[in-house]
Amino acid sequence: MHHHSTTDTIVAVATASGVGAIAVIRLSGPEAFAIVQGVFRGRDLLQQPSHTIHFGTIRDGDKVLDEVLVSLFKGPTSYTKEDVVEVSCHGSDFIVQQLMQLFLKQGARLAQAGEFTKRAFLNGQFDLAQAEAVADLISSDSALSHEVAMKQMRGGFSQEIKKLRAELVHFASMIELELDFAEEDVEFADREQLRLLISNIQRIIRELLRSFELGNVIKNGVPTVIVGKPNAGKSTLLNKLLNEEKAIVSDVPGTTRDFIEDEINIEGISFRFIDTAGLRETTDKVEAIGVERTLQKLSQSSLIIYLFDITTTTPEELQAELEHLNPKKLPILAVANKIDEASPATLAVFGEVENLVQISAAEGANMDGLKEALVAKVNLGKLNTREQTIVTNLRHVDSLNKTYEALDDTLSGLDLGISNDLVAADIRRALHHLGQITGEITTDDLLDNIFTKFCIGK
Amino acid sequence: MHHHSTTDTIVAVATASGVGAIAVIRLSGPEAFAIVQGVFRGRDLLQQPSHTIHFGTIRDGDKVLDEVLVSLFKGPTSYTKEDVVEVSCHGSDFIVQQLMQLFLKQGARLAQAGEFTKRAFLNGQFDLAQAEAVADLISSDSALSHEVAMKQMRGGFSQEIKKLRAELVHFASMIELELDFAEEDVEFADREQLRLLISNIQRIIRELLRSFELGNVIKNGVPTVIVGKPNAGKSTLLNKLLNEEKAIVSDVPGTTRDFIEDEINIEGISFRFIDTAGLRETTDKVEAIGVERTLQKLSQSSLIIYLFDITTTTPEELQAELEHLNPKKLPILAVANKIDEASPATLAVFGEVENLVQISAAEGANMDGLKEALVAKVNLGKLNTREQTIVTNLRHVDSLNKTYEALDDTLSGLDLGISNDLVAADIRRALHHLGQITGEITTDDLLDNIFTKFCIGK
Repeated sequence: MHHHSTTDTIVAVATASGVGAIAVIRLSGPEAFAIVQGVFRGRDLLQQPSHTIHFGTIRDGDKVLDEVLVSLFKGPTSYTKEDVVEVSCHGSDFIVQQLMQLFLKQGARLAQAGEFTKRAFLNGQFDLAQAEAVADLISSDSALSHEVAMKQMRGGFSQEIKKLRAELVHFASMIELELDFAEEDVEFADREQLRLLISNIQRIIRELLRSFELGNVIKNGVPTVIVGKPNAGKSTLLNKLLNEEKAIVSDVPGTTRDFIEDEINIEGISFRFIDTAGLRETTDKVEAIGVERTLQKLSQSSLIIYLFDITTTTPEELQAELEHLNPKKLPILAVANKIDEASPATLAVFGEVENLVQISAAEGANMDGLKEALVAKVNLGKLNTREQTIVTNLRHVDSLNKTYEALDDTLSGLDLGISNDLVAADIRRALHHLGQITGEITTDDLLDNIFTKFCIGK
Repeated sequence: MHHHSTTDTIVAVATASGVGAIAVIRLSGPEAFAIVQGVFRGRDLLQQPSHTIHFGTIRDGDKVLDEVLVSLFKGPTSYTKEDVVEVSCHGSDFIVQQLMQLFLKQGARLAQAGEFTKRAFLNGQFDLAQAEAVADLISSDSALSHEVAMKQMRGGFSQEIKKLRAELVHFASMIELELDFAEEDVEFADREQLRLLISNIQRIIRELLRSFELGNVIKNGVPTVIVGKPNAGKSTLLNKLLNEEKAIVSDVPGTTRDFIEDEINIEGISFRFIDTAGLRETTDKVEAIGVERTLQKLSQSSLIIYLFDITTTTPEELQAELEHLNPKKLPILAVANKIDEASPATLAVFGEVENLVQISAAEGANMDGLKEALVAKVNLGKLNTREQTIVTNLRHVDSLNKTYEALDDTLSGLDLGISNDLVAADIRRALHHLGQITGEITTDDLLDNIFTKFCIGK
């Protein structure tokens, strides 16, 4: 279906920049072997089998730039299905830059963002949804986002879409065949079966669209806000959560995890705290920014933690505050703070209140209970991430919605008894949008849009 | 000479941390193949030849952690001369950490800083000076530091040291042989030849020690200070130099060079400007910090740029200032600024002054002339970096000095006609210190001291 032939050879640094023991430069294209061979002193690379590694030096004229290991991958048994060479050199930015300039001088072209993966897609290594998952995988920073990206990259999601598409294709062909025999009034496509199939596909699409609510949470985290009266302990709570997170993630030296300011990771879900910089500066946040700004912050969040001082609040006051704060009925979690200072009587009174977590942020008491409650609020329990396909990509959501509409149109067309060519056109439209997900249907714009979001070197 | 046997298998991330297309994890030791095979789904790695690459998945139980390429190196044809496996995975810190934890769980041990290179040294892959050059190479950030480190890594320096040592060893053996025949009064070692040899070695050591002046400059840069009266244009000049540097280095995307604040690179030499942060804040630096602090800054530098306003200074005033400023007779370069505002007569008067560069920092006039003069001041011209061996390592300087002293003692011993066993002891002492450079003589402390300065993964 795709025809793709490249005449140029691309090159890029494939590893992160900075000082490391080694760095890897990757070349792909018809001249990849020849370009490296032209500056390599060692075995004749052109005579070596695929998937072998060779030690030697890279030279610019007489000058030895580095001692390297060269890995050879002959197309089509490579990532891009083209000839690929990976040069593993000493991990100095200076050396990497010298080698890059040498390869460019030898005729390689600097790869664009995502160009290796784009070539892999165009050469049929994997479909578009799988290619997109490569970028998701690289940027995955939690167990769940990793799991979902891995499943998508390995084709789980694509298989589901392709199955739906294959069934529709069958009916589209049958109906188009009827068009060829129009004067004979035959019916190759059973209309009742078609209706059933469409309803079934629509049901699956609705499930997939529903999964995006979770998929989005998994990929982008849950925007969360902590509100409460002055001195409720908001900054203490946030600092406690952030510090525990840092302490939990085991710190294998040499594998620095980038901690994103004000984001914590609980059971694979990222909770992103909105506007928390200020929260830690002033304890009088609600008072300082006024009701209007508080409401604005709330509107950006999809989860509210309402923190209150258990020693100075009654259950009635709490109830009033919760209703006042949350006109939009967002998921809200009431958290009673300072239980270490509360009387047994107070604790007992609040023990009766439903959907309430009691903690002491200062003492770190019941933080596990708080985390459990946060995860429960995200409603992950509804879905089984292992079994169910989860949509994480807004582009896929858009295509699924358009497919759904085209199927709706097909159904109404059938109900109204419109002509076969119009029914066939509606089905084709559904197939078109479904095909865009896995890339059976693509345009240059679509591909550019997808691959420019990749990093260079992938 | 070295006997080294390791029973444990070490693992570390070999690439820089951060997001990249790929990251590489390296294992070395007797269990390297088995540990990876235990979590790898693909071909049986234990059955594959060395220097081959295999695609597959890494799994923790049922869970696919990543699709990877596994490179196999069977000892002794590997970097460490042990069995080595490199796992190339997707470049996400999350995935890297998952894989690292899995390998640790499978029985690998986290490598210490420099432990791969230390094993390579202990297993005779290269000598100690070469091993040290690996770290220098990785941190090299200019053409000259790269060239010198590369030469040292490829054994240039080591060969020179080993040649000197081999000649001395011969004489030491001869003299020790004489001790065995003490009662027979034979002389196997020609004393005159020994004197000649020692003088010759001492001459070479002096040359090597002298080369350290340059070697240190190449490796660590030239601490430089710009001084001058208020409004001479010091901050303008510094900004001009720094900005030109950034513009010159071609910026291949994906190969970010780290620019060190206030360091510029001219013809491979780094000029590090001391205390320049303040210099750009205030133009009244000299006045503000007082004479005492100016002198203190001067004492840390090894090159002074004296900048003056050509329109408000006479040659006599300049001469007086230069003498006043530089009691220690450091290399000093007088730079006349604001030539764009000066009259032809003024320019002519200063045209007569020797060792003076005329510029306009504001207009960027004659910056090349300034750079040429700076490089000339470092006196690089004396030495041919291609031909001559250059010492860059303070440890080597120390050993060379101690060798030199032991040879001095040998010579005075010969002059005084001391007994053969004492002469032999002096020569052995020289050999000991010389042998420490290339690691023929080592102690655990010495090795620890060297390799802990490496990064983890190398």
